[in-house]
Amino acid sequence: MTPEQLRNQLKEEAARVEGYLADCLDLLPGLPAGLRAAMDYSLLAGGKRLRPVLCLTFARTFGKDGGIANAVMPFACAIECIHTYSLIHDDLPAMDDDDMRRGRPSNHKRFDEATAILAGDALVTDAFAFMASAGSRLPAERVLAAIACMAAAAGGPGMVGGQYLDMRYTLAKKATLEQLRDMHAMKTGALITASCLTGAILGGADKKRQEAVAAYGKAIGSAFQIMDDVLDNTADPAILGKPVGSDAANEKPTYPSLLGLEKSRELARRESEKAIAALPDAGTETGFLHALARYIVERNS
Amino acid sequence: MTPEQLRNQLKEEAARVEGYLADCLDLLPGLPAGLRAAMDYSLLAGGKRLRPVLCLTFARTFGKDGGIANAVMPFACAIECIHTYSLIHDDLPAMDDDDMRRGRPSNHKRFDEATAILAGDALVTDAFAFMASAGSRLPAERVLAAIACMAAAAGGPGMVGGQYLDMRYTLAKKATLEQLRDMHAMKTGALITASCLTGAILGGADKKRQEAVAAYGKAIGSAFQIMDDVLDNTADPAILGKPVGSDAANEKPTYPSLLGLEKSRELARRESEKAIAALPDAGTETGFLHALARYIVERNS
Repeated sequence: MTPEQLRNQLKEEAARVEGYLADCLDLLPGLPAGLRAAMDYSLLAGGKRLRPVLCLTFARTFGKDGGIANAVMPFACAIECIHTYSLIHDDLPAMDDDDMRRGRPSNHKRFDEATAILAGDALVTDAFAFMASAGSRLPAERVLAAIACMAAAAGGPGMVGGQYLDMRYTLAKKATLEQLRDMHAMKTGALITASCLTGAILGGADKKRQEAVAAYGKAIGSAFQIMDDVLDNTADPAILGKPVGSDAANEKPTYPSLLGLEKSRELARRESEKAIAALPDAGTETGFLHALARYIVERNS
Repeated sequence: MTPEQLRNQLKEEAARVEGYLADCLDLLPGLPAGLRAAMDYSLLAGGKRLRPVLCLTFARTFGKDGGIANAVMPFACAIECIHTYSLIHDDLPAMDDDDMRRGRPSNHKRFDEATAILAGDALVTDAFAFMASAGSRLPAERVLAAIACMAAAAGGPGMVGGQYLDMRYTLAKKATLEQLRDMHAMKTGALITASCLTGAILGGADKKRQEAVAAYGKAIGSAFQIMDDVLDNTADPAILGKPVGSDAANEKPTYPSLLGLEKSRELARRESEKAIAALPDAGTETGFLHALARYIVERNS
């Protein structure tokens, strides 16, 4: 698959996800209109929709039923709700204090701090309602296993714990490479891994295949984060949609600050190769997943 | 059951819940120690543990298996995690800005704002991991239905949406009685109702029984909230564990401000009677649930 073909397929998949995201809050009767507006503001602000696309891709790879993508869609979109909530809370004044996100005012700037906190709280909780709703078309055991996987990845031992450690290290202005790696594995890696793994679980992959899928997810998650750090040093802010150079200005420990730019890029490439090497064991050497692992280290936004 | 017997049974049940809560975060390998300390600080700060006790009570009422309470315990404690997260976030400076909770500094005063936000985020997410873990001892369909019920009650259409409306009405310093009732049904009622209902679902109650259980939960939730408003006007702060009179000082719309104290008490008593009237249809006229509905309107803390 060429980079051009990959971009087109990513866009197509993302568009399908957008279609569902645009209406998913309709499924919550009684949601106050003002709160919904704040949730929609961040949920529908664009983005690559990488996590739901990964979930859908792996579900389709293993699911024998042609309707598997539709059945998994509520679950895949729930992952985007969780990702969106994490961005809203990360931007809060008490956290990273970011005024802009994806080229627009961040949620608490557009609304207010209380509304932003609650919009995040609602998104993460409602995400579990969407996940559970997948049980109407998929075996309950699979959905329950996927919920357990997602909760572990998003919670204290995963994404939230990673954000906690990130704040500690940023405050201390130091971290070892090992601490940085473990922190990112929790903050970014866990949710990306779980996006792949829940897709495989919902599609019916056996344990051995699930392990290989998790290895793929872990490696692309790591490559993705390293490149995020690199792009904060090198990207065009107009293309990236947010200011760059803030990590260095804050003396925040990053891969480039610890390893330099070239070694960081090299590490990302090695992670990308690791991801590709895991695909045969996952029984799913599709061109799309192969190309995606390459794209992550070659992206400029 | 006498009030004395009820208090003893409540204490006994709460003690069993405490025992599980004290260790439940051990089940999350990799949870950063500092984050865990903040979660434990609020999770283990005491309280009536009413929600998990309701869940366990209804599970035992319907569950034929003698081990049902142990099987449901992780789910019941997950409800307390959700309740605790809501208190931590409600106390934040951007929300109700409360410095004290249960006679001690609130979470963001003891730690810091970022840690308090993340401790809440972790508690609500990890709660779903605990809920899903109940699937190892209970049918997956039941656990999934209970998770759906809990997510709906805690999320945007429920507790979070209720807090959003509460903040709007408080800011506006006005609300109609109907708005107040709907807001409280979301903010407090939904989680109490779901505590009863998930217990019944996990215990295997049929649809008709589930409806009666929900009616009981809704009525005691309503009575509970009305009495909360009343106690803010009348209670001894030393017994209540928090300052009183803040609602009136903030000109916050409450049942007493709209109806007066005596009519508010009368309304709470009527809700308590409604709860008791639902018990025969639930097929569960236990003395405990009967006495509990009375206790809620007679409590002084």
